[in-house]
Amino acid sequence: MKAYKDMTKEELAHEIKELKASYKKYKDMDLRLDMSRGKPCREQLDISMGMMDALNSEADLSCADGTDCRNYGVLTGIEEAKVLLGDMMENNPDNIIIYGNSSLNVMYDTIARAMTHGIMGNTPWCKQDKLKFLCPVPGYDRHFAITEYFGIEMIPVAMTPEGPDMDVVEKLVSEDPAVKGIWCTPKYSNPQGYSYSDETVTRFAKLKPAAPDFRIFWDNAYGIHHLYEDKQDYLVEILAECKRCGNPDLVYKFASTSKISFPGSGIAALATSPNNLEDIMKQLKNQTIGHDKVNQLRHVRFFGDIYGMTEHMRKHANIIRPKFEAVLATLDNRLGGLEIGEWTRPIGGYFISFDAMEGCAKAIVEKAKKAGVIMTNAGATWPYGKDPHDSNIRIAPTYPNMEDLKLAAELFTLCVRLVSAEKIYSQMAD
Amino acid sequence: MKAYKDMTKEELAHEIKELKASYKKYKDMDLRLDMSRGKPCREQLDISMGMMDALNSEADLSCADGTDCRNYGVLTGIEEAKVLLGDMMENNPDNIIIYGNSSLNVMYDTIARAMTHGIMGNTPWCKQDKLKFLCPVPGYDRHFAITEYFGIEMIPVAMTPEGPDMDVVEKLVSEDPAVKGIWCTPKYSNPQGYSYSDETVTRFAKLKPAAPDFRIFWDNAYGIHHLYEDKQDYLVEILAECKRCGNPDLVYKFASTSKISFPGSGIAALATSPNNLEDIMKQLKNQTIGHDKVNQLRHVRFFGDIYGMTEHMRKHANIIRPKFEAVLATLDNRLGGLEIGEWTRPIGGYFISFDAMEGCAKAIVEKAKKAGVIMTNAGATWPYGKDPHDSNIRIAPTYPNMEDLKLAAELFTLCVRLVSAEKIYSQMAD
Repeated sequence: MKAYKDMTKEELAHEIKELKASYKKYKDMDLRLDMSRGKPCREQLDISMGMMDALNSEADLSCADGTDCRNYGVLTGIEEAKVLLGDMMENNPDNIIIYGNSSLNVMYDTIARAMTHGIMGNTPWCKQDKLKFLCPVPGYDRHFAITEYFGIEMIPVAMTPEGPDMDVVEKLVSEDPAVKGIWCTPKYSNPQGYSYSDETVTRFAKLKPAAPDFRIFWDNAYGIHHLYEDKQDYLVEILAECKRCGNPDLVYKFASTSKISFPGSGIAALATSPNNLEDIMKQLKNQTIGHDKVNQLRHVRFFGDIYGMTEHMRKHANIIRPKFEAVLATLDNRLGGLEIGEWTRPIGGYFISFDAMEGCAKAIVEKAKKAGVIMTNAGATWPYGKDPHDSNIRIAPTYPNMEDLKLAAELFTLCVRLVSAEKIYSQMAD
Repeated sequence: MKAYKDMTKEELAHEIKELKASYKKYKDMDLRLDMSRGKPCREQLDISMGMMDALNSEADLSCADGTDCRNYGVLTGIEEAKVLLGDMMENNPDNIIIYGNSSLNVMYDTIARAMTHGIMGNTPWCKQDKLKFLCPVPGYDRHFAITEYFGIEMIPVAMTPEGPDMDVVEKLVSEDPAVKGIWCTPKYSNPQGYSYSDETVTRFAKLKPAAPDFRIFWDNAYGIHHLYEDKQDYLVEILAECKRCGNPDLVYKFASTSKISFPGSGIAALATSPNNLEDIMKQLKNQTIGHDKVNQLRHVRFFGDIYGMTEHMRKHANIIRPKFEAVLATLDNRLGGLEIGEWTRPIGGYFISFDAMEGCAKAIVEKAKKAGVIMTNAGATWPYGKDPHDSNIRIAPTYPNMEDLKLAAELFTLCVRLVSAEKIYSQMAD
């Protein structure tokens, strides 16, 4: 296909006319499709139904050390859950606290604790004048929502295929004591599907923060969420790397089984250094008597061990890989060569990131919505929902069934073409 | 029996000698008994095992409105869980948020939110100079631990069999804008088993706080935890009463199924006014994508409705009623007439409160511990763990089996007698 910018005004006018006719046809179909959120589809949920049989009324609900999981207690989680999630997170079980059903809640709670009680003896954040977080962009809207809720100023840092721009990160973290944290989705990042390079992780581990209470918020949400068996990203383990670099307390690492077992009914975990754990325990012992041990035990009995979990992830991959490939094929077929957008080709995670021509994202999402296809709001991948380029759109291919997904992807590319063509046309000299 | 204080020095010396001999016999038995925490016993946990079959791999995990409980979403809980807990709490389902596994965590979170964001537009507590909470005493140590953790000054208010001394509560709440809350366990209170009278509840509902951000923290932990079918306490429903009195936003009410289904694996809830709910939602939507809906559905399927839950509570009562009666019988038999202690006779809840002679509680608990019987720490029922009278001891009869419990109660009364007798003896004139 000829790039739109290279078309004559006449050619482009013709293209727009045809695109409008196609768009009308889609609109008349009265679609109700959703490519907005990173939700597993029904088939993915079905593969975890065996978990509902992992514990029944005849089961012994004691864990290996004899603790009756039905009763109160065990503040940091049962040992076998720490082992399972330790293997999943590549961390020592001793460095892990098992929480409730939501790692987002653990991240929220981590910031709330820093606000009211400070980090490892430092002044509580709520008593400090100015708080800033670095936000690699595009990034995850729910991360940004937490920092916004706490009134923490968010500073965008550009993402690259290797991870955040570390020159900028190093400069800001080392020079400004108001910079207290950085949000990272280091593997199969949300939304680009990029994984941080070895060098990036090492540079993170070597950071020399101006603030003694600076922490890296390492949300390893997609650590084992590969799409392919023979093509996988590898991520240097950050806790070990920080220890090696003499910065053992620099990181809070988060993970959960939300996209492994059931979203909202999984178990979440935090891994960090002994000093940070000791700090957190002062809160934890006042906050709860313990998290849901029966659900911890259910996960352990169902998965058995990390091999069982890895096997389970293959089933997920088999369901969603064709969806990613279908969307990418549509993007390639419909937009290839037009020079009106770029997109990532992740080999894991839950998203494809699409960059439209500057100033077009909102119009594209709006046009898709009018024809019945819900995309993530344009701007959502930036702090405060404001993408200064109005360019980035997150595509979430997992939830719709294949038929709906193909339709939605077709319509999406049509909207990209129409909005882009009209924009280019309007800028052409008469 | 003759009261110790009326004995001659010689009689008391003889008594002490005999008690010491008995105590030595118990010590030689090398006991390992625990009457310290309000934990259900194994038999109580067993009656909820059917819950493990309430959902299996063949089950439809959709709730009534069609939502797939396995996936993300439904921030405030599924409707049928709100109905079930609404019936349990005597509140409209629309006034309820279903949380995770721990109401203690919800209380912690409620105070943490007030610290960082304030209540309904008022200045965040962390930006206010002085914060105080009223603490009816004796009370629940984990309530006090939360307020202590947040640096909130705790002011003890005496409990009566009708509830807290409302003259004092009214005065402090109406005069001091630093008073931001009061901890209440209004029904079968921890540890006395007292239930607030109608008048007490109405006086709570009519409070005119000096602080616009004062709230009653109404922890209705034992709302349906009766010991008898024919003898039950009734509690005026506080939300409705507050509304009637023109104070709709005065109360946060907490409850959970921790001592109904499985402690630590139940569901917790908060009930409050629409204004408070709206305020809380600003936090909740940033804090999580939703709590564990599968566990909510599991509870609904297992209990069916409030009648099922009430029936279930009868089974609990049948198990623990004889334990309460055994402890009370031992207290009556061993301490009756000695005038060295007083104790409550609850008809619900999880505790018996014992008041020793002033200055004896620590010594009694220590002596019991040395003979292998763990009681709740003396002082735990007071803010900062400091009982100014060194008098109150909480007895938790539910967890040990009957044989152990009887032994523990015997030993406890023996320790009370020995410590008291020695104290009286030491104060006698030569």
